[in-house]
Amino acid sequence: MPLSKIYKLHFSSNRRYVKALKNMLGFVPGNLHLYHLAFRHKSVAVPVKDGVKNSNERLEFLGDAVLGSVVAELLFKKYPYKGEGFLTEMRSKIVSRAHLNQLSKKLGLNELIQYDTRMISYPNKQGSLLGDAFEALIGAIYLDKGYVFTKNFLINRIIKPHVDIQTLEQTETNFKSRLIEWCQQAGKEVSFVQTENAEGDSVKIFTIDAVVDGEVCGTGRDYNKKSAEKIAAEKACETLNVL
Amino acid sequence: MPLSKIYKLHFSSNRRYVKALKNMLGFVPGNLHLYHLAFRHKSVAVPVKDGVKNSNERLEFLGDAVLGSVVAELLFKKYPYKGEGFLTEMRSKIVSRAHLNQLSKKLGLNELIQYDTRMISYPNKQGSLLGDAFEALIGAIYLDKGYVFTKNFLINRIIKPHVDIQTLEQTETNFKSRLIEWCQQAGKEVSFVQTENAEGDSVKIFTIDAVVDGEVCGTGRDYNKKSAEKIAAEKACETLNVL
Repeated sequence: MPLSKIYKLHFSSNRRYVKALKNMLGFVPGNLHLYHLAFRHKSVAVPVKDGVKNSNERLEFLGDAVLGSVVAELLFKKYPYKGEGFLTEMRSKIVSRAHLNQLSKKLGLNELIQYDTRMISYPNKQGSLLGDAFEALIGAIYLDKGYVFTKNFLINRIIKPHVDIQTLEQTETNFKSRLIEWCQQAGKEVSFVQTENAEGDSVKIFTIDAVVDGEVCGTGRDYNKKSAEKIAAEKACETLNVL
Repeated sequence: MPLSKIYKLHFSSNRRYVKALKNMLGFVPGNLHLYHLAFRHKSVAVPVKDGVKNSNERLEFLGDAVLGSVVAELLFKKYPYKGEGFLTEMRSKIVSRAHLNQLSKKLGLNELIQYDTRMISYPNKQGSLLGDAFEALIGAIYLDKGYVFTKNFLINRIIKPHVDIQTLEQTETNFKSRLIEWCQQAGKEVSFVQTENAEGDSVKIFTIDAVVDGEVCGTGRDYNKKSAEKIAAEKACETLNVL
């Protein structure tokens, strides 16, 4: 191990944080600033310039793209005789918010994410906090270590040990019908209710609540009603642990 | 230049094709099979196994992802103080079908694409043939040369010389309103007409024609009506050279 890594792990003022990251990720991070940023939810971020906050949202944008590319190649090579429709669907399943939230929990990212607990107090309401941080982490690793390193990390440390691709092949991804079916079996009532937009929202945006037995279990927002319902259903599935 | 490249360029049986690619791309391709595949439209592809054809669709899936990742990083670094909403929108503009079709033409990909001219006889009806081949080419370059090479190729050979990011910042991407505005100015009538699905199509799919002065100028198909209209409008903008 190079001296700089030994210093970082054992003598630097950040050594606890570096050790926590090393245990979680399997490598010694280079630029710690990137990892701090990846774990900073917008609820605790402060504006830096032109109204942009130092939250993990920009890294999430980057990490989402890098993840999409790595998974695309993995599937392209794993399934040489499957059409692009199948590949696209499989990728959606692997990178779905519900699935990334699960992965995030398995990795233990929840220990490191900084967020305002007053805003997000109930664990089930953490929504996509975990999955977002996972994508932001991928963005941070990419900037810190480059594409090939990130690809190997994702394949060997995340996908091979934690993602059961064979099972995902069989999984139904229609969250709305999955939620409705689950509610029928559990004797619960489910409905999708359009709510008013918050002030300042574009009039084009639809906001839909998935309501189960009178309680809002997921909210979706999108430019069309169907997609907003889909997001609401996905979030409700997550809240209720419908798999 | 290594001997293998000199051989490929001047002595191999494929030397004309290799030279054409080198002139277009600026480098000597390695695995020619990948480039042949990238330029083969599904209309001339033949089944290879399990019903999957040797068309460029799978490479397009891969290239789309790699392109998305490269553009994400470029924008992330170019705009350090812009939020992820802005970055997402800018990326959509750069990788929009209409824009990729333009890029494809500028590169001269139309000279190399193989397709059934009986099916796609009128140049304006070529639709996304060009943009699809562009993405497939990125997939081929990625498999042939790796991520860093592809990134440098895209930035130095495509984006810097051909993409005016400053102008794109100002561009309106709402194709429907852009089409309607253009038709108003040109004194043409425009309407969006829902048509019946082809036999065997999923009942969930909407098919919408953008009709300008009685002629179908673009067709969109998607799981919701709004998106299908959007795609139809984008294709019509392309057909009518509405920029």
